[in-house]
Amino acid sequence: MNLDEGALRYAEKLDAGDPLAGYRDRFALPEGVIYLDGNSLGPLPRGTVAATSELVEHAWGQRLIRSWNEGWIDAPQRLGGKIAPLIGAAADEVIVADSTSVNLYKLVVAALRADPSRRVVVSEAGNFPTDLYVVEGAVAAVPGAELRVVERAGLADALGDDTALLLLTHVHYKTAARFGMAEWTARAHAAGALMCWDLSHSAGAVAVDLNAAGADLAVGCGYKYLNGGPGAPAFLYVAKRWQERLGNPLSGWMGHAAPFDFVDDYRPAAGMKRWLTGTPSVLGLGALESGLDIWAGVDMAQVEAKSAALWGIFHAAGTSAGLECVTPTASAERGSHISFRHPHAYEIVQALIAKGVIGDFRDPDILRFGLTPLTLSHADVARAGEMLRDIIESGEWQRPEFAARNAVT
Amino acid sequence: MNLDEGALRYAEKLDAGDPLAGYRDRFALPEGVIYLDGNSLGPLPRGTVAATSELVEHAWGQRLIRSWNEGWIDAPQRLGGKIAPLIGAAADEVIVADSTSVNLYKLVVAALRADPSRRVVVSEAGNFPTDLYVVEGAVAAVPGAELRVVERAGLADALGDDTALLLLTHVHYKTAARFGMAEWTARAHAAGALMCWDLSHSAGAVAVDLNAAGADLAVGCGYKYLNGGPGAPAFLYVAKRWQERLGNPLSGWMGHAAPFDFVDDYRPAAGMKRWLTGTPSVLGLGALESGLDIWAGVDMAQVEAKSAALWGIFHAAGTSAGLECVTPTASAERGSHISFRHPHAYEIVQALIAKGVIGDFRDPDILRFGLTPLTLSHADVARAGEMLRDIIESGEWQRPEFAARNAVT
Repeated sequence: MNLDEGALRYAEKLDAGDPLAGYRDRFALPEGVIYLDGNSLGPLPRGTVAATSELVEHAWGQRLIRSWNEGWIDAPQRLGGKIAPLIGAAADEVIVADSTSVNLYKLVVAALRADPSRRVVVSEAGNFPTDLYVVEGAVAAVPGAELRVVERAGLADALGDDTALLLLTHVHYKTAARFGMAEWTARAHAAGALMCWDLSHSAGAVAVDLNAAGADLAVGCGYKYLNGGPGAPAFLYVAKRWQERLGNPLSGWMGHAAPFDFVDDYRPAAGMKRWLTGTPSVLGLGALESGLDIWAGVDMAQVEAKSAALWGIFHAAGTSAGLECVTPTASAERGSHISFRHPHAYEIVQALIAKGVIGDFRDPDILRFGLTPLTLSHADVARAGEMLRDIIESGEWQRPEFAARNAVT
Repeated sequence: MNLDEGALRYAEKLDAGDPLAGYRDRFALPEGVIYLDGNSLGPLPRGTVAATSELVEHAWGQRLIRSWNEGWIDAPQRLGGKIAPLIGAAADEVIVADSTSVNLYKLVVAALRADPSRRVVVSEAGNFPTDLYVVEGAVAAVPGAELRVVERAGLADALGDDTALLLLTHVHYKTAARFGMAEWTARAHAAGALMCWDLSHSAGAVAVDLNAAGADLAVGCGYKYLNGGPGAPAFLYVAKRWQERLGNPLSGWMGHAAPFDFVDDYRPAAGMKRWLTGTPSVLGLGALESGLDIWAGVDMAQVEAKSAALWGIFHAAGTSAGLECVTPTASAERGSHISFRHPHAYEIVQALIAKGVIGDFRDPDILRFGLTPLTLSHADVARAGEMLRDIIESGEWQRPEFAARNAVT
């Protein structure tokens, strides 16, 4: 491999002045791997190892049922309060529950029921598919409701008197293109619609300010940039002004005003607690809390600045190797990952994995790389970029072992 | 304390011949505690400690995203296959997903949509409340649907031409009264309705045979007798004959026929996989799998027999102390817990906890004790019974420190 010594020295210089450099040691990263997939599954925080053992061996094993009174029952709200500062929300506007998909169902149905004169949910063609699948299910639960899927260029024109909700993923899962949150929220409101953001590729990736944008609703994921572990519980946000007006269609005991009174009739809890449904995964909550504790005090402006620097390094490597970048180049218009297009994207990703650089292939022709500022150094990204360039320029990706496709990537 | 030496010697004799005695060592039980709450949160299997560490440190920490192809993606079906023999189902009729509440919502909405000529869900007054809350939410998602809540004595008469679904909890959470599964399934079918069982207090507690009863649908809980850990993922069962006819209203990417094709339109997976919604909690699945691995090969007839013996011991202690037993005395008519009524149930439970005997108080006047055959010896239960008797006969429960009520019990 012809490592570009200039690029590496530049990256090392950036590392020397990196205010976030100390965070890397808080993660247990495998030897010999440069992990550019923290936007799909965030790496393991070192603190999670001990926290999970404590949770399993002491809280579950020794304290048993008593632990529900010793921190478990309030965990969904407590963790919501820890996510809130990362997304520009008040602590009592966020709660952790279920999966992103399930939470989205709750909010879409609730929004549709809030105003029977508006029946249309507008979303983007090519949005992360589960968002569209979930809305298909949600509109089936509300008489007359429908999903209108529109290409990005037509979204503004698709909003009208019949629009109940505009649902957008803030940072696109494939291209990393970022919507202007304030601008699009204002557009939805101008049409009389509510605005719901999917923050799965945003929370912990870019500065988000739901309150400043006037956003009504949001959902997001715990297992990507928040480092909550595989299938970590998700979160949802409801602006305070909506909290008493929206009801959870998945009415369950954990969202009841008095769950331990065991009465037959459902009565929703005040505030965010009504968005809970069944008993939450305590192991999932515990791991997510360890991840969130790393984020306490992180300056998102520093995260965005480092993301931009990492992006610049990797973008230069990819484009100099002839890859077409499909991510917007202006940093305010993208998230913290970068995607390239190449007809042999799959093979190139496999060849990179064989060298210890883990990225993602996304059908049909996208190479996607997560640039997670807390877990990557500039030198990591420079080395990975050089390996990418080398694999393409040498034609190494054409080796037959990189051609077979697995079921999941 | 006046320990009844005869009762203890009898219990020790039963322990000596107990074919399930060896299982107790597979659980990490706290010193000085007799845990009669395994029907609320099952104790920690020793194997779960190592399995969780391996999952966190190796599969997540070292293998990272690659682990999805190394056992995670198939876990919901694999674990369903491990639950199946405990509930009389085929391996491809059970899947692990979400919470019991969320799964129940899916099945109730699906059942209501299967036959638009029937709009009523019948369930029991005093059923575990989340079941009723969830059905309140589910009927709101189907035009014209309604929930009819009926006292147990009136259930049979409540079934008719308009009944879409009879939803019963097989073993009552409070009294442990058990419905005859075959008899009630036949009643539902005679009325032309589907039958859905909530097995939360049944799976791992009593022998269950969904297929033999002809049951259509079921849900159940992973964190009680199955020892899957706090808030463990739940399971759902759909009889094979219904699998292609029912659709999941919570349509999400994990239930898609081709989740990694990332197409905009939802197309349900074949078989049980369509009942998945979002990304599942991998830590929750891992812990549940460790619990289920203990259950592999356990003979449920032995479990029922031991449960009956434990029940007899504790019943004798409680009733001899003057407590009113609210659990049916015929073993075929109950589950594996026992409940007594006393106007000072709360204080008595607190006094027991202070002595290391952990049971449950259930509003307003119920003392509830789980008798979990894999984790308790007969001698444990005899000792706990003697302590219960002692607390009541000595009046020790009247001490002021046992009067203050906590939020959760």
